[in-house]
Amino acid sequence: MPLLHLSTWPEVETYLQTSQGIILPIGSTEQHGPTGLIGTDAICAEVVAKGVGEETGAFVAPTLNVGMALHHTDFPGSISLRPSTLILVIRDYLVSLSRAGFQKFFFINGHGGNIATLKAAFAETYTTLLDLNIPGGDRVQCQLANWFMVRSVMKLAHEVYGDREGSHATPSEVALTQFVYPEAIKEAILDPEVNQTCRIYGPQDFRRRYPDGRMGSDPSLATPEMGQKFYQLAVEELSRSYETFLTQD
Amino acid sequence: MPLLHLSTWPEVETYLQTSQGIILPIGSTEQHGPTGLIGTDAICAEVVAKGVGEETGAFVAPTLNVGMALHHTDFPGSISLRPSTLILVIRDYLVSLSRAGFQKFFFINGHGGNIATLKAAFAETYTTLLDLNIPGGDRVQCQLANWFMVRSVMKLAHEVYGDREGSHATPSEVALTQFVYPEAIKEAILDPEVNQTCRIYGPQDFRRRYPDGRMGSDPSLATPEMGQKFYQLAVEELSRSYETFLTQD
Amino acid sequence: MPLLHLSTWPEVETYLQTSQGIILPIGSTEQHGPTGLIGTDAICAEVVAKGVGEETGAFVAPTLNVGMALHHTDFPGSISLRPSTLILVIRDYLVSLSRAGFQKFFFINGHGGNIATLKAAFAETYTTLLDLNIPGGDRVQCQLANWFMVRSVMKLAHEVYGDREGSHATPSEVALTQFVYPEAIKEAILDPEVNQTCRIYGPQDFRRRYPDGRMGSDPSLATPEMGQKFYQLAVEELSRSYETFLTQD
Amino acid sequence: MPLLHLSTWPEVETYLQTSQGIILPIGSTEQHGPTGLIGTDAICAEVVAKGVGEETGAFVAPTLNVGMALHHTDFPGSISLRPSTLILVIRDYLVSLSRAGFQKFFFINGHGGNIATLKAAFAETYTTLLDLNIPGGDRVQCQLANWFMVRSVMKLAHEVYGDREGSHATPSEVALTQFVYPEAIKEAILDPEVNQTCRIYGPQDFRRRYPDGRMGSDPSLATPEMGQKFYQLAVEELSRSYETFLTQD
Amino acid sequence: MPLLHLSTWPEVETYLQTSQGIILPIGSTEQHGPTGLIGTDAICAEVVAKGVGEETGAFVAPTLNVGMALHHTDFPGSISLRPSTLILVIRDYLVSLSRAGFQKFFFINGHGGNIATLKAAFAETYTTLLDLNIPGGDRVQCQLANWFMVRSVMKLAHEVYGDREGSHATPSEVALTQFVYPEAIKEAILDPEVNQTCRIYGPQDFRRRYPDGRMGSDPSLATPEMGQKFYQLAVEELSRSYETFLTQD
Amino acid sequence: MPLLHLSTWPEVETYLQTSQGIILPIGSTEQHGPTGLIGTDAICAEVVAKGVGEETGAFVAPTLNVGMALHHTDFPGSISLRPSTLILVIRDYLVSLSRAGFQKFFFINGHGGNIATLKAAFAETYTTLLDLNIPGGDRVQCQLANWFMVRSVMKLAHEVYGDREGSHATPSEVALTQFVYPEAIKEAILDPEVNQTCRIYGPQDFRRRYPDGRMGSDPSLATPEMGQKFYQLAVEELSRSYETFLTQD
Repeated sequence: MPLLHLSTWPEVETYLQTSQGIILPIGSTEQHGPTGLIGTDAICAEVVAKGVGEETGAFVAPTLNVGMALHHTDFPGSISLRPSTLILVIRDYLVSLSRAGFQKFFFINGHGGNIATLKAAFAETYTTLLDLNIPGGDRVQCQLANWFMVRSVMKLAHEVYGDREGSHATPSEVALTQFVYPEAIKEAILDPEVNQTCRIYGPQDFRRRYPDGRMGSDPSLATPEMGQKFYQLAVEELSRSYETFLTQD
Repeated sequence: MPLLHLSTWPEVETYLQTSQGIILPIGSTEQHGPTGLIGTDAICAEVVAKGVGEETGAFVAPTLNVGMALHHTDFPGSISLRPSTLILVIRDYLVSLSRAGFQKFFFINGHGGNIATLKAAFAETYTTLLDLNIPGGDRVQCQLANWFMVRSVMKLAHEVYGDREGSHATPSEVALTQFVYPEAIKEAILDPEVNQTCRIYGPQDFRRRYPDGRMGSDPSLATPEMGQKFYQLAVEELSRSYETFLTQD
Repeated sequence: MPLLHLSTWPEVETYLQTSQGIILPIGSTEQHGPTGLIGTDAICAEVVAKGVGEETGAFVAPTLNVGMALHHTDFPGSISLRPSTLILVIRDYLVSLSRAGFQKFFFINGHGGNIATLKAAFAETYTTLLDLNIPGGDRVQCQLANWFMVRSVMKLAHEVYGDREGSHATPSEVALTQFVYPEAIKEAILDPEVNQTCRIYGPQDFRRRYPDGRMGSDPSLATPEMGQKFYQLAVEELSRSYETFLTQD
Repeated sequence: MPLLHLSTWPEVETYLQTSQGIILPIGSTEQHGPTGLIGTDAICAEVVAKGVGEETGAFVAPTLNVGMALHHTDFPGSISLRPSTLILVIRDYLVSLSRAGFQKFFFINGHGGNIATLKAAFAETYTTLLDLNIPGGDRVQCQLANWFMVRSVMKLAHEVYGDREGSHATPSEVALTQFVYPEAIKEAILDPEVNQTCRIYGPQDFRRRYPDGRMGSDPSLATPEMGQKFYQLAVEELSRSYETFLTQD
Repeated sequence: MPLLHLSTWPEVETYLQTSQGIILPIGSTEQHGPTGLIGTDAICAEVVAKGVGEETGAFVAPTLNVGMALHHTDFPGSISLRPSTLILVIRDYLVSLSRAGFQKFFFINGHGGNIATLKAAFAETYTTLLDLNIPGGDRVQCQLANWFMVRSVMKLAHEVYGDREGSHATPSEVALTQFVYPEAIKEAILDPEVNQTCRIYGPQDFRRRYPDGRMGSDPSLATPEMGQKFYQLAVEELSRSYETFLTQD
Repeated sequence: MPLLHLSTWPEVETYLQTSQGIILPIGSTEQHGPTGLIGTDAICAEVVAKGVGEETGAFVAPTLNVGMALHHTDFPGSISLRPSTLILVIRDYLVSLSRAGFQKFFFINGHGGNIATLKAAFAETYTTLLDLNIPGGDRVQCQLANWFMVRSVMKLAHEVYGDREGSHATPSEVALTQFVYPEAIKEAILDPEVNQTCRIYGPQDFRRRYPDGRMGSDPSLATPEMGQKFYQLAVEELSRSYETFLTQD
């Protein structure tokens, strides 16, 4: 499992002679309802990324634990970067790694709220690499892979949870965290009525709209066993995606 | 047709007593293949927005002509804001209008490349309004309406153009510009072979990948008559969307 | 009339072989007193720019509708960029266009409040082009042409309106909008007493000082006929300025 | 002579009970031709500001030595802030001082290149003070006073130097520095041919256009005696301006 | 061990009723010589922070894995934020957490290169909290605790390693990573000659000056057993520091 | 005494043929207790820098009068840049000077609060020079020299003042200003009880904690005679440091 942070720089130098790809897990630190862990999105992204790294031999960078979760910040314990900050962070990561010779950046993402900002950041970075005249910068490619939107994962979640999957603090993501941290399974009485819409505006509006933090989900359905299945499906499918990404022009 | 730029401030003051909604058209200034107009996305967004304004009596703000089109900037005539700049622009627009009492911002968008940055900008702005303690700021809502993704428009485009609709410089958007500016219909011999993928990375990569600027499309199928149909479908459906947006919490 | 947004990228490529000049109209979206249109400055800049484009064959870029109007933002309907944002916007425009080969940027401006920020933006951009090592960047030149400060326009306004021209929501600019949009001529009873000073500080101070938005002007003197005269004078004189700009080193 | 940097905070606290005004000298650090001092603009602004402080009893802040001189940066020894940086600097100064109770900011400026950015910075700051809800922020006023554009100074310079005053490295400003630093009078053989235009674009263009740094001027006409006269005229007239500024609403 | 990312928001809400303190580990992702792990600084900060959390019952936030390591970026595998980016990141973290009621921020840091930027970020944030009028913002306190500068740790390192401790890729920090990840102990032949100075300038200069990445250190002296001792000393001493920090005004 | 602002650009051009070094004094504008001058840190840095310039023949740049003093801004008369602003200022200075050929930047600093931000700014700038491809940019070096931390100065202050030196508004720095400006020696009755801690958080906290602005110091011990001694020691020792800096790689 070639984790970047457990490697040395000469090992990276050697790796770059045969591959210019790297996997970057990105999650979020935000409320996930009464029973979901604040680190859910980072935990999921990290474990899936490590799995894909094992399967493919790709380097896995340290996890971006904090993402764009401004709409959750009216719940205590949530931490968010502003989109404009996250764009700079991604730019700094990719400039550092591109200068060293990396060219294929595969982001494994655990949080829907990161998607827009990440895409904006990729566009901003491509032009920044051009501005800085970084050799090979015009060959840099970023791909965004949301583990929770992987076809097989969504299919299974739909089959098992139906409408109770919801769109935040979902049983599928909670299950995956239970698989990783069985010692941290939380219990609470969940209101069976839960807002099924998924409109998102500002942080105060979010808390008024979704008072316990869930968006249409029933995380009490989660089990570690299902979590393991989601893990396996995600790793399997994203490993194939990564390999395709590496080889395609 | 209440266009903001053809109104006076007392007229706006009066309007705000009964509605806090406003429509903001946003397009792009970018290459659209050998025959598509550089202003295609702005032209389409503007005409549809004006139509929705007529239907609903909503104010229509001046069109944001230039958006996020960095990937097109290797073709001459394209102008793009960086995502980080566009976020600031949107923030400035919404802070100005929110201070005056507007709360429901309905963006009619003509360019796929704007979507991610606009969503990031909305999130950034909601928190900025909170930071600035703007009265009613926690009630501000933005909605993004892409005219080309309106259900009836997509359905018709699919029926008429099938796979030749493609994803950039499409016959549907070109048709709409032909309806608006029949005097500016352009002709050119188009290579029948066109790259059908839709991967987008940096500007130089884009031009290598899509040498004449089209992404899988055959804009020679466009006609002003079809443009009018797209116009009518988009205005009809988005007028309903705007009205729903105004009334829902 | 070569409007950039009604052209294709191959047309721009061809144009660049014989000219590196482009006209950029910039206005503002701000209150113009009880009868002046919120879009006055953008409307005026755009129509004059199109006229100059017709006269000279120069490309005209899409109009920057929103400029630096922070001092007007205590009146509803005004939208302003911050100066720091507008500097980035101008930088992004000019970087995009300079990379394509444009070198002579002729801004036709309709708003006094834009002048300072535009000049600052030009300085910032010249050095940015140097930083980015853009080929030919050291040959880039920006010129600022305020249509309302054109000699013949000022002379006529002085002759016809004297002191009642004032300095904001002036009869001359209102007349020009009446010429362009005769269907949008507004009426209101104007206080004959109007603050003749022209000191400008913050937005709240501005509204206290100029309660109906006018600065020393009597826009009831405006007529579409006079508007046409201003139009002709401005187009004539600015066409000469543009031609001189193109040819001088 | 109440210089801020030679005072204590309790002295400032006392002063604020009777006046909310302060003088801020701003210059530049840039080439001034073969014989002009690099600090010319800062030296002039500072000495005039101190003179006005003596006359009026106003506090004088420390001199902003470095301003917006990007166009001079192809000559060694020039230092410039970017406009976007200078805007932040001014904002930081005015936020600090406004929080303490200062409200009337009188900038005595020695450099034409600062004017646009300063005006942009004032606009940006007024709105920032509003954003930050600083008590009394809506009463803050900035005034820009260019010592070299004072009526009596310009009149005298015109009478004595005529066309040889030029527009950069002028005999009037050089004379003023000679009055302040007679020990630093420099000599050089000046080319009698000097570019009389005053077009300014980027730094490399500037040096090509004005090879020895002068813009149409003949600084060999400068004498310390004339410098003293300019000093007296500027102090006299700006002291009156400051007093008017303090008392007017 | 109350890790924030393994908790729920109601648990955080409860915690805040009795404590407003939180521990934030911050490391770096940078070369650590031929045998040191790229994640050394993050690994050390995280493990010590978790130890302190266990001892004191304090919440531990997710680790900031990437810090300010620009000087290491000429070695492959290093990732760095720019100081200006890291300041924004810290600001965003602290604004999020302060809004929720946290007031005592205890940063456990593993990287000397972070110190300056963190201190700058704390200053920037205190004033930002004031700007945003966050309730209790004027009571927010940040404390920086560098585990490697803890008195007992430095004393032991000096006793055991003497001059061979050096200042980067030190045997003490490598030992601590060996204690945490015994499976990732790396071997390499180290040049016995190593640059003993510790001057740091730009990235290219750094690599010229310290060709294998070490600064005066002999990491071959590291053992997991010593790592455990450093861990215990750091946890013990920093737990006392944290408790003092919580109780002092 | 080669002061940059009393020199011409050809003199700088000549100087650069034999030296690439320059001294930059940086101070602060902030309260220094009931008797200390607001300009204390700038006055001290400037006078010492001029002394070192005389001794070594080095150019001395204009003094950065305003630094990072946010924690003092609850006392009237203090002016501070935000750290993020100061980083940009330093970047702009060094980019200007590096383009001209300067490579060795020796900052003589008079304010402890500047240290962290300056170090962050140096790191940011080294990478910016790399980004901009400035010739020789990879050879640029910055050194920070705090006059008050010079060994001989600290030794003397300790011998003469012992614990009453304190850490802000110290007798040593006040003495130095008395030596420079004997006409500006201030008197006040100082509370003999003074807070001996030196914890620094936000501006409001600072004023609560240190009500008269002093941090553990007794500035009534200061005399101009001692000021002269500190001056001589600082100049002597820093002249040697500068010479070493110039010659070492």
